Amino acid sequence: MERIKPRTLSGFMELLPAQQVLFDTIYRSLEESFSLYGFTPLDTPMMEAAEILLAKGGGETEKQIYTLNKGDTDLALRYELTTSLAKYVAKNYSKLSFPFRRYEIGKVYRGERAQRGRFREFYQADIDIIGDGGLDVFNEAEIPSVIYECFTALGLERFVININNRKALSGFFEIIGLGEISTEVMRMVDKLDKVGEDKLREMLMDDLSVTQEQASEIMEFVSFPGDPFELLEKYKGKNELFDKGYDELAAVKKHVIGFGVPETHFKINLALARGLDYYTGTVYETIMTDYPEVGSVCGGGRYDNLAEYFIDRQLPGVGVAIGLTRLFYILQEQSLLNNSLLTSASDVLIIPMTDDMSPAVSLAVSMREQGLRVQIYGENKKFAAKLTYANKLGVPYVVLLGEDEIGSGQITVKDMVEGSQVTASAGLLITGLCDKIKKLRSGVPIKT
Amino acid sequence: MERIKPRTLSGFMELLPAQQVLFDTIYRSLEESFSLYGFTPLDTPMMEAAEILLAKGGGETEKQIYTLNKGDTDLALRYELTTSLAKYVAKNYSKLSFPFRRYEIGKVYRGERAQRGRFREFYQADIDIIGDGGLDVFNEAEIPSVIYECFTALGLERFVININNRKALSGFFEIIGLGEISTEVMRMVDKLDKVGEDKLREMLMDDLSVTQEQASEIMEFVSFPGDPFELLEKYKGKNELFDKGYDELAAVKKHVIGFGVPETHFKINLALARGLDYYTGTVYETIMTDYPEVGSVCGGGRYDNLAEYFIDRQLPGVGVAIGLTRLFYILQEQSLLNNSLLTSASDVLIIPMTDDMSPAVSLAVSMREQGLRVQIYGENKKFAAKLTYANKLGVPYVVLLGEDEIGSGQITVKDMVEGSQVTASAGLLITGLCDKIKKLRSGVPIKT
Repeated sequence: MERIKPRTLSGFMELLPAQQVLFDTIYRSLEESFSLYGFTPLDTPMMEAAEILLAKGGGETEKQIYTLNKGDTDLALRYELTTSLAKYVAKNYSKLSFPFRRYEIGKVYRGERAQRGRFREFYQADIDIIGDGGLDVFNEAEIPSVIYECFTALGLERFVININNRKALSGFFEIIGLGEISTEVMRMVDKLDKVGEDKLREMLMDDLSVTQEQASEIMEFVSFPGDPFELLEKYKGKNELFDKGYDELAAVKKHVIGFGVPETHFKINLALARGLDYYTGTVYETIMTDYPEVGSVCGGGRYDNLAEYFIDRQLPGVGVAIGLTRLFYILQEQSLLNNSLLTSASDVLIIPMTDDMSPAVSLAVSMREQGLRVQIYGENKKFAAKLTYANKLGVPYVVLLGEDEIGSGQITVKDMVEGSQVTASAGLLITGLCDKIKKLRSGVPIKT
Repeated sequence: MERIKPRTLSGFMELLPAQQVLFDTIYRSLEESFSLYGFTPLDTPMMEAAEILLAKGGGETEKQIYTLNKGDTDLALRYELTTSLAKYVAKNYSKLSFPFRRYEIGKVYRGERAQRGRFREFYQADIDIIGDGGLDVFNEAEIPSVIYECFTALGLERFVININNRKALSGFFEIIGLGEISTEVMRMVDKLDKVGEDKLREMLMDDLSVTQEQASEIMEFVSFPGDPFELLEKYKGKNELFDKGYDELAAVKKHVIGFGVPETHFKINLALARGLDYYTGTVYETIMTDYPEVGSVCGGGRYDNLAEYFIDRQLPGVGVAIGLTRLFYILQEQSLLNNSLLTSASDVLIIPMTDDMSPAVSLAVSMREQGLRVQIYGENKKFAAKLTYANKLGVPYVVLLGEDEIGSGQITVKDMVEGSQVTASAGLLITGLCDKIKKLRSGVPIKT
């Protein structure tokens, strides 16, 4: 028979069992964090009519969309979760209550050129709060605390949530006479981290004909070393948009502290522009302190109209997204995954040492009733092969059930890490195992 | 602006928030049931190279596969999870330990003609146990207890797992001289439930030239009213394949009882053939007792070679699949979903009644620390509008936080179901809320 080489497409993450368990642990932790803030789970289709996904037009992104055709409908795979949310909210508008808070963790598809660390199929974890007609800035203030909760629950300690306000930024550019080209200036300023201060100043003057004075003012603004509000104060009262942004930023800062985000973990960063046309208020980016080069691991912001392509209602919102697959990839690459977490699918492997499997079956039933995850080794192999299997499986405990044990109503439990072994009554040992397993499962997925 | 009608493709299930929560509850319950039996979670790509998915050739199914092209690769969306498992096991053969137990709950795609109750995108929940070179029949005996655990954990009470053995069935046909056309006979016998006994007898004789005597023997075999083993006994010692099947069936029955599956919930059903070429040992189908017309909600069986298209190793296995989306659809249609289960995304909605949101923020922080899912209503609306929102959200408890409460260090909790209201210290009420919420969350997703 001619065989086909089993392969997985490049750019598609497919994990070995232990890694998958770690991935799932992160996935569930995010779900729990989102839930604490009252976000409801959604699971929208992976595929939509092409006209839905292309509604807002995507420029570069559009080229990456996977399209397909079946029957007479042009179909496409979603490349982000926001368009699906927009469609969902517009479609179910009358059935939802606003502000509508949802999270969705799902796969999206981008037909990018495959390269290391870039994925064609990847999970995004999105939260959004959608208002009907309006949405208080208070919601923008709560988002950083959700991000903080997410990452600390995962065990990540060293990260900073950068926060800025697009109104303050645009207002500032208007004040210094660059209102007309504020988009272009912002796009350039966003490169500060990459190019450095000198190069940025040069680019602003050469490419955008910004005067030396304006350039200096921009440079001071985006790299002010002290309390940013001290600097912002200087511009107050000169521009309505700026003043609104200032007030929003002050409100956000106040509540972010109120929500318990430590000052070490967020920063009002006036250089942050993030995206260009979409965001209209608070914007966020989250940087892993020790790995600034990987860029933002959770970003987003406030936008004014979620679903204008689908519905004649203004639906402002605020949201952030975590690139979950990419985050997992980085954690793996940087050896930040907590490999001491229990990743075996079973807590206990029962190895029957008699031909009759019935005692093993009864024991498995009692153990599962106590919530233990139990596998019975049912193959007719030599004892050494059975132990080799247990070792390869990474199972923490093995129960040996021979004639002696069965005769005396006892079981033998072998601790596969310590190598120790104890024989005693099943009831007693099962209780002990439950406690030990609880401890083994209680870690966080990221090394602290 | 020209607007696009927001729509979801037909054949794609997209749920409203409360339904989504019920769906997710079922999803997680299945995960937990699978985990108790030591199945490890996998998450394989939704898309594969077309040659991988088409490796085994699909006949009718192949026509339903969604294909797409990007660059120079022919791609396809998976239409089941088994081919992905076969690829995974072949690809990672040396890294896995056998027997390899995995579950995968994931979306699959079939470009069927859309009709009520048929889906183009749907979840399958699969478990499989894969052996290397061999796999003891004991594994086949454990599967019904997994199915029993899954459905009872969901709250379903009235269902029956039908069990048969393909070796016994094939052996029987050989014994009565129909070995040459056993596949055709089986295919016909599988229709017994649909066409009835008389029609089946007629079809066997007319279409397959089965003699009257053979037809009578078949009819007795597939509709024997007493203990099937009494009937099977008659044929023992006449055919090697039959005897093997008999022994397997006896072993399966013994252990199914040992695993605690009540005799009311499984049945050795000699009429069950299930599929035709793939299965080679025990086969299963699960019927909801009160809804036999919906057919099997969980089926599968033993097969001899999982991945012959990909690897030169014999990898026998046994597995079953639950059509999760279809099951959910049926539960919805038959009003079997437990709507008294808590489906709101928040346990508590805090309604601040002062301009300063800080006390609400502090309270939310304390409540979330206790594991309560809390949303703060942050919009500047009239009190009536805030309560309307709480009602529409379906949140069980509302906390009112006005000047009086803040001044006295108390909170007012309104029970949205009972309509009652109590004012007391926050600490006291939070503890009470945690208890109440625990109870509200503790139900099963299917009405009992």
